Amino acid sequence: MDGLSVASAGGGTRIEGVMAAISDRIATRSLMPGARLPSVRSFAKTMQVSVSTVVEAYERLAAEGTIRSRPGAGFYVCGPLPPLSLSETGARSDRNVDPLWISRQSLEVGDDVLKPGCGWLPPSWLPQAALRRAMRTLARGDMAALANYGTPLGLPPLRQLLARRLGEHGITVSPDQILLTESGTQAIDLLCRFLLEPGNTVLVDDPCYFNFHALLRAHRANVVSVPFTPTGPDVELFGQILERHKPRLYITNSAIHNPTGATLSPVTAHRLLKLADAAGLTIIEDDIFADFEDVPAPRLAAYDGLDRVIHIGSFSKTLSASVRCGFIAARRDWIDGLVDLKVASSFSCGQLSAELVHLALKDGSYRRHVEALRVRLAKTMAEVSTRLEAIGIVPWLKPRAGMFLWCRLPEGLDAADVARACLAEGIVLAPGNVFSLSDTAGRFMRFNVAQSTDPRIFQALEASMRKLR
Amino acid sequence: MDGLSVASAGGGTRIEGVMAAISDRIATRSLMPGARLPSVRSFAKTMQVSVSTVVEAYERLAAEGTIRSRPGAGFYVCGPLPPLSLSETGARSDRNVDPLWISRQSLEVGDDVLKPGCGWLPPSWLPQAALRRAMRTLARGDMAALANYGTPLGLPPLRQLLARRLGEHGITVSPDQILLTESGTQAIDLLCRFLLEPGNTVLVDDPCYFNFHALLRAHRANVVSVPFTPTGPDVELFGQILERHKPRLYITNSAIHNPTGATLSPVTAHRLLKLADAAGLTIIEDDIFADFEDVPAPRLAAYDGLDRVIHIGSFSKTLSASVRCGFIAARRDWIDGLVDLKVASSFSCGQLSAELVHLALKDGSYRRHVEALRVRLAKTMAEVSTRLEAIGIVPWLKPRAGMFLWCRLPEGLDAADVARACLAEGIVLAPGNVFSLSDTAGRFMRFNVAQSTDPRIFQALEASMRKLR
Repeated sequence: MDGLSVASAGGGTRIEGVMAAISDRIATRSLMPGARLPSVRSFAKTMQVSVSTVVEAYERLAAEGTIRSRPGAGFYVCGPLPPLSLSETGARSDRNVDPLWISRQSLEVGDDVLKPGCGWLPPSWLPQAALRRAMRTLARGDMAALANYGTPLGLPPLRQLLARRLGEHGITVSPDQILLTESGTQAIDLLCRFLLEPGNTVLVDDPCYFNFHALLRAHRANVVSVPFTPTGPDVELFGQILERHKPRLYITNSAIHNPTGATLSPVTAHRLLKLADAAGLTIIEDDIFADFEDVPAPRLAAYDGLDRVIHIGSFSKTLSASVRCGFIAARRDWIDGLVDLKVASSFSCGQLSAELVHLALKDGSYRRHVEALRVRLAKTMAEVSTRLEAIGIVPWLKPRAGMFLWCRLPEGLDAADVARACLAEGIVLAPGNVFSLSDTAGRFMRFNVAQSTDPRIFQALEASMRKLR
Repeated sequence: MDGLSVASAGGGTRIEGVMAAISDRIATRSLMPGARLPSVRSFAKTMQVSVSTVVEAYERLAAEGTIRSRPGAGFYVCGPLPPLSLSETGARSDRNVDPLWISRQSLEVGDDVLKPGCGWLPPSWLPQAALRRAMRTLARGDMAALANYGTPLGLPPLRQLLARRLGEHGITVSPDQILLTESGTQAIDLLCRFLLEPGNTVLVDDPCYFNFHALLRAHRANVVSVPFTPTGPDVELFGQILERHKPRLYITNSAIHNPTGATLSPVTAHRLLKLADAAGLTIIEDDIFADFEDVPAPRLAAYDGLDRVIHIGSFSKTLSASVRCGFIAARRDWIDGLVDLKVASSFSCGQLSAELVHLALKDGSYRRHVEALRVRLAKTMAEVSTRLEAIGIVPWLKPRAGMFLWCRLPEGLDAADVARACLAEGIVLAPGNVFSLSDTAGRFMRFNVAQSTDPRIFQALEASMRKLR
């Protein structure tokens, strides 16, 4: 004990004063978990107390578990990670199977690993000729395209082309209602910043693309989910959730749903929009799989006329994931605020990427490529479906198009266990519960058929299922 | 008045019930400012009241100014824009001169406009040969580079090269402590997400890069500023501010300060870090002008050993602003949380951009280009300085390097007035107060010397100053 128990400003002893000062810094996060505390000597000077007072205060804080000492290296703040650490264990194979598990595993592994769980096509399935031609064109083109920031809305001819393409899906939009972004993910991120405040409620499908969970957690949103049926979200439950939870926002895919491959039916689209209208709900329609479609499905943005629906897309699935470019199509009176937010948070999206995407989409070979890709995907989906069924893994539905098969494992199996077992064999899978807020997809798994052609995948699946059953 | 004044759930009449339901939706932002209210008919059905009740409720809400009617188009929510609209008037020339003013003006104008106020070099000043060569190399290279997502940390050889370059500035860092981002701005944005909660206090220099203000506003931070001197922030005031405001974070440039062109002195760096250490302050050191330096200035990250200093950079100033790529160098135990946040909010940064930057930086011509650029900038700075002084605009200091001159206008002039007058002549300037949180730089202006070679700039400046005095 410090003999000089003079009352500090807070009314306690000097030691308690030092403890309170440190606790306060931890509480206000000016000392983050993991951070080193000021040295005893410097903090004694700061607090105008003796070194021994600080030593005793630090020891007590260590005893109560607030800080811990590392021999010879001072004291460090213990405690939970900062709220915005979305997980604790990175991509290590013992990491919990959380919403970031698949992303980290599939992005970090080498080319020798098989990735039926990942969400993109192998590079050889992408339009090589169009991309290489676009690169060569830009290499000898105007230096401004290679060197300058883009305009805040993004490359005008690409926005014009996008407006025409959206028109083909029944979405009437002017190029000045289209804002280019770095990616589809960044488009949703920007919209969340624009529309949400911490604690707002956001509705997602159950199951839905796992990164929606991670992104919304980063925005400190309160996430609720609605069960997804083969024709869209369950409309009755959707209505009940709007009434009970009053979500600010609903994020969904309409054309080809991730992970189920389902397609929204016109009647579901219509009912959903009526409910949204009555409840004042804003909807983000993520349409990044649009180019996989054979027969166009209904778009919420087309029915709604971009009033309460915001339409986003990107080119990472059918053109290139290396060339980052996405877009937002939204009501006119929101564009300016979105541009300000984009300039503040990323200054400008990549003009080079936009030029490349524009050249590649214009390239005559792109449409031929996409047509061939659809045929190849349909054929591969049928083959992979047959092989999966042969080992007892049954598709929930037969998607009209796209690359995903959402499948049910044989009874008694946990998809996360199977995924962990197969990861040890160098195979990254996508277990169902990372897509499910309610954790009700424990027996499901998403397969990317374009990444599921290697026979080793089915061998490893069968072996691990046999072992786990 | 509704004759059926039956008590609603809230205790008022039915009309009041409808009014309360709408007000509640506005308060919870499920109806955003500018949004259209549900139609009278549909909302009558939702609330199970008569159409006339809803009509009367809407009329009263309109009368009290909560909503307004647009003839033939229904009712709309009035009121302030959503908090995250950072401004109200876009890039129109009557827009208030706010922190986004210069960005929006300079990014939106055509090539015919002169931009002494912008923050980048003309494309012809950038390393054309290295960029074109890198594009050609990639055009015929591995398809994976053109098509795949990058790894979560970003291209390994670029991170290795950056670790070596940082080593040359005395910053010892391993490549796995470096995280590639889309840009320098996105690097700071990611760090703000990681480190800040809404309402946290952040310290910036006064003056500082205006986009720090916009970005921090987007993070709902409480921003305070410390006066900047020719050798860095005023250390005495810095200490007082730490004590009074307990900021969580300090964001600064160390090598070449934007907008002043000043260089941090070793003694200021040392004192500043001692204060930061005692207060548990985290520092983001934005070093995007590093390659302009002739004689290396002290880096906070070098003195501190990346303990509480996070070092960020990009290539938009010396290589290309069209190829988006930045980086974060930080303590090892923060990298994994930052990667999760990056995956959640942008999934992956552009592999193509990283490959381009890597090839261009490796290109033998890059170093020669940078050396020539420094000479050209120094020469241009001397010339522009002379021309400005001739019309009474005096540099605050003579920067050691870089492209910025921070200048004082003759007494009695407001830089925002001069900027507005010159904008009408097709010249975008950078008036001082957009850099100054305390609004004490009303007589200052930042000139980018590389964009200030056209004689029309000095003519327009002189004419507008004469008119305004």
